[in-house]
Amino acid sequence: MIKVTVWNENIHERESEEIRRVYPEGIHGCIADFLKKEGFEIRTATLEQPECGLTEEVLRNTDVLVWWGHMGHEKVPDEIVDRVYRHVNEGMGFIGLHSTHGSKIFRKLCGTGSEALKWRADGEQEILWTVDRSHPILDGVPEKIILPQEEMYGEPFSIPNPDSVLFISWFEGGEVFRSGCTFHRGCGKIFYFRPGHEEFPTFFIPEIQKVIVNAVKWAAPFDFPKNTTGLVEPTHPF
Amino acid sequence: MIKVTVWNENIHERESEEIRRVYPEGIHGCIADFLKKEGFEIRTATLEQPECGLTEEVLRNTDVLVWWGHMGHEKVPDEIVDRVYRHVNEGMGFIGLHSTHGSKIFRKLCGTGSEALKWRADGEQEILWTVDRSHPILDGVPEKIILPQEEMYGEPFSIPNPDSVLFISWFEGGEVFRSGCTFHRGCGKIFYFRPGHEEFPTFFIPEIQKVIVNAVKWAAPFDFPKNTTGLVEPTHPF
Amino acid sequence: MIKVTVWNENIHERESEEIRRVYPEGIHGCIADFLKKEGFEIRTATLEQPECGLTEEVLRNTDVLVWWGHMGHEKVPDEIVDRVYRHVNEGMGFIGLHSTHGSKIFRKLCGTGSEALKWRADGEQEILWTVDRSHPILDGVPEKIILPQEEMYGEPFSIPNPDSVLFISWFEGGEVFRSGCTFHRGCGKIFYFRPGHEEFPTFFIPEIQKVIVNAVKWAAPFDFPKNTTGLVEPTHPF
Amino acid sequence: MIKVTVWNENIHERESEEIRRVYPEGIHGCIADFLKKEGFEIRTATLEQPECGLTEEVLRNTDVLVWWGHMGHEKVPDEIVDRVYRHVNEGMGFIGLHSTHGSKIFRKLCGTGSEALKWRADGEQEILWTVDRSHPILDGVPEKIILPQEEMYGEPFSIPNPDSVLFISWFEGGEVFRSGCTFHRGCGKIFYFRPGHEEFPTFFIPEIQKVIVNAVKWAAPFDFPKNTTGLVEPTHPF
Repeated sequence: MIKVTVWNENIHERESEEIRRVYPEGIHGCIADFLKKEGFEIRTATLEQPECGLTEEVLRNTDVLVWWGHMGHEKVPDEIVDRVYRHVNEGMGFIGLHSTHGSKIFRKLCGTGSEALKWRADGEQEILWTVDRSHPILDGVPEKIILPQEEMYGEPFSIPNPDSVLFISWFEGGEVFRSGCTFHRGCGKIFYFRPGHEEFPTFFIPEIQKVIVNAVKWAAPFDFPKNTTGLVEPTHPF
Repeated sequence: MIKVTVWNENIHERESEEIRRVYPEGIHGCIADFLKKEGFEIRTATLEQPECGLTEEVLRNTDVLVWWGHMGHEKVPDEIVDRVYRHVNEGMGFIGLHSTHGSKIFRKLCGTGSEALKWRADGEQEILWTVDRSHPILDGVPEKIILPQEEMYGEPFSIPNPDSVLFISWFEGGEVFRSGCTFHRGCGKIFYFRPGHEEFPTFFIPEIQKVIVNAVKWAAPFDFPKNTTGLVEPTHPF
Repeated sequence: MIKVTVWNENIHERESEEIRRVYPEGIHGCIADFLKKEGFEIRTATLEQPECGLTEEVLRNTDVLVWWGHMGHEKVPDEIVDRVYRHVNEGMGFIGLHSTHGSKIFRKLCGTGSEALKWRADGEQEILWTVDRSHPILDGVPEKIILPQEEMYGEPFSIPNPDSVLFISWFEGGEVFRSGCTFHRGCGKIFYFRPGHEEFPTFFIPEIQKVIVNAVKWAAPFDFPKNTTGLVEPTHPF
Repeated sequence: MIKVTVWNENIHERESEEIRRVYPEGIHGCIADFLKKEGFEIRTATLEQPECGLTEEVLRNTDVLVWWGHMGHEKVPDEIVDRVYRHVNEGMGFIGLHSTHGSKIFRKLCGTGSEALKWRADGEQEILWTVDRSHPILDGVPEKIILPQEEMYGEPFSIPNPDSVLFISWFEGGEVFRSGCTFHRGCGKIFYFRPGHEEFPTFFIPEIQKVIVNAVKWAAPFDFPKNTTGLVEPTHPF
């Protein structure tokens, strides 16, 4: 059974009644709910917990880490970021949602200023178009997903060349965005998925849930080739 | 001096007075004109010429081939397609414009059904957003290019993973498209550039011209490593 | 259950007693055998059958097509190549083994002169090193696979940029080769795997079998997004 | 004129007479010499200088930074690493040589544990084979470069998918390595080039110099698209 840890900074939901009305159990609660129904083993963790809820013990028992962060990016201590980073490179899957693009951990995995992009929270329409239809994260997903109201993110988005681009978004106000991108770092697989602004009930939409469920399956670790490093004897005598 | 051959099927311009009013010298004439001003050595070739104007002699003297085709795709004989294909793989640059996505030569270079996409010729607005800003084809190009009226092309666009995505287009009617894509095949560099519907004076727009000029410079061949193939002696004795 | 068709030209095994001694049931027989043990539904097809054994009916019932060809490349009719090509673009997985690099179908999928490479059949040692360890085709595969005797293939190998490079081979005589490469074309996933010269019992080696079994699982189709193409109404009114 | 800063930790050359005999002017001196002959404007900088010789002023006047580091990786202060990182993302070219794979700056640009690889300093033969022959860094470079004696680096090399793989190395002792890789981060272009162990006079070899000269030309910045970020007005009224 795939073990998933859903991490959420959980600030908006605690500080704003308006957001709490959208996500009464927190964004992490909503995501944990629909993942549980798929039979994954689910744990949640939040910023206010000791070590952000991401102890070595927790991460050692996590196959895929789902992350939602925004206002609290800089409150995540560097040691926690380094710990998550190490686990990803060792094979833990990582799914970064929405404003996670600006988190310390995503920037560290990218090696770019991925925090810099255009944005506008006017509640305009977003249409996510599928691009690389051969990718298993799109299993059972329709050609396009229409979100009635979302925050806009606009290109240029400073990321390394993705391994695959799964979605490109169209926004009512004239912008576009690579909204579904895969990467790998070491043995770890990474999926960045754009939608999920706290003011709108995006994570309750079945197609969005389907994408995240597929991404968890895709990002789960397997029996990676064990590699040796450091000083080695010749493989072939010379 | 870079030697450029501008190929155009030249059907719309001959058969329709309306299109001739947009491109009195043909689309090839317009493109040849602005490329000449850059100091490139320019030749044009069209479908109705013997061997489509693309004799072995012409291609041997072509550094970069610019291609515009649409209604006449199937009228280009397979031998000519094979000849262009061989030259691209040997290092000739290839710039495919607009409906060239459905040409025999582009499909052969892609290995996909690149002819299949969404389209709509309602003269809506297109906004081309730059994506990979590190690419030399974007030298001096603004962050976005707004085209007041263009044909729409919509994803999914069936192409192999591009080496780089330089532009993504937004269309008024809700679609998006990877409008500037680079590939390589053998030693040859390829740039696909979406805009350029025959009904609109797109190739007269300075920013569009700038992109094509940069693409010619980027795609021009150089002194490629000479490689041996076939049965070879060991490089290292064993 | 994944439906696999194993295609083999089956010429060497019929014409040479020496090769028949290595593969008494043909290369296709050997591959079919170890794939059956995984519970896949297996069919074989060979060049000498009507329509090369690859009727529309057969391909419509094939999830993944495994291909081994060499001397008979040019004997496969273009209609059959076009049929396989269409099915790959529509989502059928394709696993090309060894000299399949020079087949009509692989060249058509690549858009390059993939037949051109260095070779030498002196029975030297090959060491396949894993590269992208995050890829599921490497599940349970060791860091390196040592083949005591193989034909050598040497770079430069004229292929488009692979989506992932899974193996790079070292050869005793001083050459290297990208021996495990993934691509996609349309909805179809493609894996090229270099080893498997007819003179050596490579396909009986457990690690090689493991890679091919994993590749079948990876390349199997799923419920792809259904896309519309052609003239479309606006998605968003304008 | 392209402005190049050649950075070298300059430890081996100062501490070991043996290494000083190979590089009497330091590795940076050797590299600066052959780059000067190309007409580039050259500056050198070393670890022992204030701010490692990489002040904001120096970096603002650097088009391409060439880096050689090994024993002193951890002695480069984080502020300097962050400064170089910012300049790369803003468009400064970066050429990382040999053991630079383990430097703080290269790891930060990769987002991986790129320090982990196999190595062996037995002075064995290395053969660098060209791979993507369409890339301008290979202009005038032969199909293979044979280095009589080098340190071995072996795969798996933990790097993100390169934009292009230009060289794969063969080592006498049975290993392989992606020895020439390009990446981009933001507007900045990056080239990692494997050869250059301090014990061997690799940087005096004309083919190696040719590659580095080409890489400098390729990595030099141009007039990048100026992008806006942050809260933006709609591009298209809605």
